[in-house]
Amino acid sequence: MIVGVDVGGTLLRAGLFDYDLNMLRRAQKETGREDGEQAVLQRLYSVIREVLADDADVQGIGLAVPGPVNAIEGIIYKAPNLPFDNVPIRDLVEEQFNLPVYVGNDADLAGLAEYTHGAGRGVDVMVYLTVSTGVGGGIIVNGKPFVGAGLGGEVGHMVIDPNGPLCGCGAPGHLESFSSGTGMANIARRRIQGGEKTLLVEMVDGDLDLITAKLINEAAQHGDTLSSEIIFDAGWKLGAMIASLMALLNPRKFVLGGGVTKIGEPLFSPMREAVKHYALHPRYYENTPIVQAELGGNVGLVGAAALVKAFIAE
Amino acid sequence: MIVGVDVGGTLLRAGLFDYDLNMLRRAQKETGREDGEQAVLQRLYSVIREVLADDADVQGIGLAVPGPVNAIEGIIYKAPNLPFDNVPIRDLVEEQFNLPVYVGNDADLAGLAEYTHGAGRGVDVMVYLTVSTGVGGGIIVNGKPFVGAGLGGEVGHMVIDPNGPLCGCGAPGHLESFSSGTGMANIARRRIQGGEKTLLVEMVDGDLDLITAKLINEAAQHGDTLSSEIIFDAGWKLGAMIASLMALLNPRKFVLGGGVTKIGEPLFSPMREAVKHYALHPRYYENTPIVQAELGGNVGLVGAAALVKAFIAE
Repeated sequence: MIVGVDVGGTLLRAGLFDYDLNMLRRAQKETGREDGEQAVLQRLYSVIREVLADDADVQGIGLAVPGPVNAIEGIIYKAPNLPFDNVPIRDLVEEQFNLPVYVGNDADLAGLAEYTHGAGRGVDVMVYLTVSTGVGGGIIVNGKPFVGAGLGGEVGHMVIDPNGPLCGCGAPGHLESFSSGTGMANIARRRIQGGEKTLLVEMVDGDLDLITAKLINEAAQHGDTLSSEIIFDAGWKLGAMIASLMALLNPRKFVLGGGVTKIGEPLFSPMREAVKHYALHPRYYENTPIVQAELGGNVGLVGAAALVKAFIAE
Repeated sequence: MIVGVDVGGTLLRAGLFDYDLNMLRRAQKETGREDGEQAVLQRLYSVIREVLADDADVQGIGLAVPGPVNAIEGIIYKAPNLPFDNVPIRDLVEEQFNLPVYVGNDADLAGLAEYTHGAGRGVDVMVYLTVSTGVGGGIIVNGKPFVGAGLGGEVGHMVIDPNGPLCGCGAPGHLESFSSGTGMANIARRRIQGGEKTLLVEMVDGDLDLITAKLINEAAQHGDTLSSEIIFDAGWKLGAMIASLMALLNPRKFVLGGGVTKIGEPLFSPMREAVKHYALHPRYYENTPIVQAELGGNVGLVGAAALVKAFIAE
């Protein structure tokens, strides 16, 4: 059996899985990140202990971590949603439970879950993209996330326009600054401050901080031009990046998840157009489906368990 | 022993290698591509036969191919420098010699050679970039080129500026249209035709077709502003792409080869600046050296032999 853990900014969730990755038992606790590193670590150990119970035959623990993590070294860097800064989480959990521990970025592990149980089943090379508050990615090769020296997979922080606006990370022109929910809302705010007219201002009663990708989508559905343009460009840039990833990685399939993809065709249509526009050759996209993710909220837990399975199966 | 072959547009070259990849014997013939597919194939067989001679213990043949090739399926697509179009080169050579045959893109195999014998020795994940007539790339992971479904590694055809000019492949904004020799010369021509003044016009006696990256470098050394700007931008875009590849692949090292890199600091200085400008976080570049390639003209032969060794070692 395997333990999979989702180390979230709001909830710490653990599941006990059998070898086919059926979840047999689960537990969760609030993260309470305001209590600091030690308190959160103790809660993490406790939620793992809860699902472990008397099961002596657990073969490993997998941890899905949001934000910057070195998956090879098992270190969480300064994370926006966790009170961790350079915490050797793998070694700490290994010491606590005397079991092998494997760590992954939550986007990589969501991709792995789609590979084992979702829309990516049966392909040897798959790219997962999650378009949400940020843009995350996971390259899955032969059943494992490919992370290079440990920090790879950060598709959202690849340059898509060298003259583009600043990304949340502080560098300019990244995909995330155009296609993520945060990026789209930032662009809307800048354009409104630049004097453009849009339904959005009315929808948020003038409080521009309340603008979200969801509202931009609603405004576009009501015929708002600025909102439609932002969605078009988010899809277009996403497609340009997918064309680039096709040239570099030539995966068998792309799997797209995350809340922003719920916008649907107004995002996907320019995305597909851009893939063709920027592709080196039609052979790069003709046999490479771009499909939507299939899995829901347990994707972190399942991915973390799948990571353990991938390593112990060796 | 292993046979490595460089299937070039000008020369077909074969080498017989021992298992440590020392070249024991070599042979070459002119490709004579104007004679068509069958003639070139016969010459290819003949140059391989020449190095094989009476050695019965050859374990495999590796082929380095310029231009578009599916490295998994062993098929050469319509190639600009060879009279081939959808030729199943791997199967043809296998039938001819009854030996296992492995095929790779020449940039991937140059990268593999740098990994086994050159500047990339000792790292598990390496990215090779060759900046020359075009921009080629090779991702080397655990001793093998990573090519996805067979067509991967085409760094030169990733988008670096969605509003950029057309690349030789016909799609816009690719790295190759800014940082390759061809791309730099095209930019110079467009800017001259747009009315800008430059020493280049004088240097080519008004025949703009004669402009090359080498001449642009010479002009820059004589204080030509337009030429310096083109070199700066070629380096800058290369650096932006390297920052992107650090985020996605997080390799241990980048190895840069190809004639355009002979420009040296005027190219490398903006490149390094752009890496820092566009990086997700300093941890992505602080421990990732960007070094120059070490190997010379035999890189295709050695890489082809190294490919065979990588597969038969399994």
